[in-house]
Amino acid sequence: MAGETVITVVGNLTADPELRYTQNGLPVANFTIASTPRNFDRAANEWKDGEALFLRASVWREFAEHVAGSLTKGMRVIAQGRLRQRSYQDREGNQRTAIELEVDEIGPSLRYATAQVTRAASTGGGGGGQSRPAQQQQVSEEPWSTPGSSTSADAWSTPGSFGDDTPF
Amino acid sequence: MAGETVITVVGNLTADPELRYTQNGLPVANFTIASTPRNFDRAANEWKDGEALFLRASVWREFAEHVAGSLTKGMRVIAQGRLRQRSYQDREGNQRTAIELEVDEIGPSLRYATAQVTRAASTGGGGGGQSRPAQQQQVSEEPWSTPGSSTSADAWSTPGSFGDDTPF
Amino acid sequence: MAGETVITVVGNLTADPELRYTQNGLPVANFTIASTPRNFDRAANEWKDGEALFLRASVWREFAEHVAGSLTKGMRVIAQGRLRQRSYQDREGNQRTAIELEVDEIGPSLRYATAQVTRAASTGGGGGGQSRPAQQQQVSEEPWSTPGSSTSADAWSTPGSFGDDTPF
Amino acid sequence: MAGETVITVVGNLTADPELRYTQNGLPVANFTIASTPRNFDRAANEWKDGEALFLRASVWREFAEHVAGSLTKGMRVIAQGRLRQRSYQDREGNQRTAIELEVDEIGPSLRYATAQVTRAASTGGGGGGQSRPAQQQQVSEEPWSTPGSSTSADAWSTPGSFGDDTPF
Repeated sequence: MAGETVITVVGNLTADPELRYTQNGLPVANFTIASTPRNFDRAANEWKDGEALFLRASVWREFAEHVAGSLTKGMRVIAQGRLRQRSYQDREGNQRTAIELEVDEIGPSLRYATAQVTRAASTGGGGGGQSRPAQQQQVSEEPWSTPGSSTSADAWSTPGSFGDDTPF
Repeated sequence: MAGETVITVVGNLTADPELRYTQNGLPVANFTIASTPRNFDRAANEWKDGEALFLRASVWREFAEHVAGSLTKGMRVIAQGRLRQRSYQDREGNQRTAIELEVDEIGPSLRYATAQVTRAASTGGGGGGQSRPAQQQQVSEEPWSTPGSSTSADAWSTPGSFGDDTPF
Repeated sequence: MAGETVITVVGNLTADPELRYTQNGLPVANFTIASTPRNFDRAANEWKDGEALFLRASVWREFAEHVAGSLTKGMRVIAQGRLRQRSYQDREGNQRTAIELEVDEIGPSLRYATAQVTRAASTGGGGGGQSRPAQQQQVSEEPWSTPGSSTSADAWSTPGSFGDDTPF
Repeated sequence: MAGETVITVVGNLTADPELRYTQNGLPVANFTIASTPRNFDRAANEWKDGEALFLRASVWREFAEHVAGSLTKGMRVIAQGRLRQRSYQDREGNQRTAIELEVDEIGPSLRYATAQVTRAASTGGGGGGQSRPAQQQQVSEEPWSTPGSSTSADAWSTPGSFGDDTPF
């Protein structure tokens, strides 16, 4: 994928994420992020809320279940994803377009909160990997999802294990 | 602040964050984010790890304590901040520059993990606050940190309380 | 201004920018950027166009005139700005929202083109400037727009004049 | 390529770009972008320059020649690319790392300047496209570089030709 419009949004969830499943059993979570800028009012010498941006967002697969199980209405999140345009017909039959966020990464902001993080149970189960379509397999090859490594002491470590020998 | 170079990084912590306090008692947490790109090798028809980017990061005030209390070595995070350049002398007396990230938002990525999020206790508490310069006070005026609101049912809500009446 | 959703878009103009003037004589240029991602089709072993994102954009003041005088339909541009949401009533009287880009920086991409760049004539000239509200004046105080400096040899230089003594 | 740290920088060139050629005849241009933030000093009620970020950048192939032929010292640019870390030995034999920008898009900012843009002459020449390695061919398949189309009236148009029938 190249040339996509990548964006990072910081804001609050307007409601709990809605978790649904496609006909093929694929989980998807939808939610809206409200991002409210603040302007400095020089006359009043104080910050004032600007107009909020409401961005509809979706996230897929196990990731969707993590989101639905972790985030609730009002929480401040930081999310990165790709802007997508979707066409649809409204009730009057007019063609409409909506801009939405296809989420690639999201987490609760720690600015005003703490979090107790738990690595997701290995999703690959007993070698189920081979039955997945190619694209999902790529995802499962990333750090943290290595099948079988979830119980080891260094479960969090990425391959190569950034340890005491890092350059910093 | 205008014209700063804002950046979003996704990667894994190379070690637990180091929490320290300035002489004035201001908390600061330092850590390194390792971000490893993946390239699609067309010959091998598979994804391969690229060269990692190691970015030194810092975060301040209560936010630093939240980070130190929530994130540990190896965790995947999403962080947004401003790139800063710092000059220093190395042991040979040469002038060096380092590029670092001044973190504005950070959270654990939910891609391969779940999180149990707890709103931070009101930070306005017993003193300290009143002696802060104006700019620090602005920070504490943002959503989630309103003193006294932490116990109410809608503690998570931002002012204006995005509820059932949102446009989505 | 803080907490705004800043975004960078690369794409092609769908038409020449439309330059208009507000009742107060303030120039504004509107245009649409079409950003087309490309996906690698592993089965076909080739790149294919994805679905385009059409983003309506606006730019103000002298900057608008520079855009209208430099960019034309089809040109590839790189633009950075803030996502804004605008509410309006459609013909059926329904409340609608549109997401648009308030452009902070834009230029023709040099990927497939060259450009002959000319510094804009000093805008501070014969009056007008002093009647502007504070915020507009800030804009004109930025590098390149210093009144009176446009004819000097180092007209392009920002204050501090990054010259031969830079650290690189 | 996935998971790279993409960044957009706005700043001024500290010097003319240096254009060189690799042993294989591949053009590469190097330059440094100085990005100076501005802070609002509430006490003084005015904006003041912050500390500049100096980011070393490189750009490749025909794109490098376009940059070298269009941009000069002091010009304000907007650039997007990927942060890269490079290891090297300094004169004392110490291992050092430097963070640099691998430019994907760059253009002169039109905020304080105008530009006369010229589509690059078709680089494919007489059907030379077929002799290129795969990766370069991908690049040359993008809008603006279609061999043979450079003289047609709608040379700027992307395939599909966003015209009067666009949704905006």
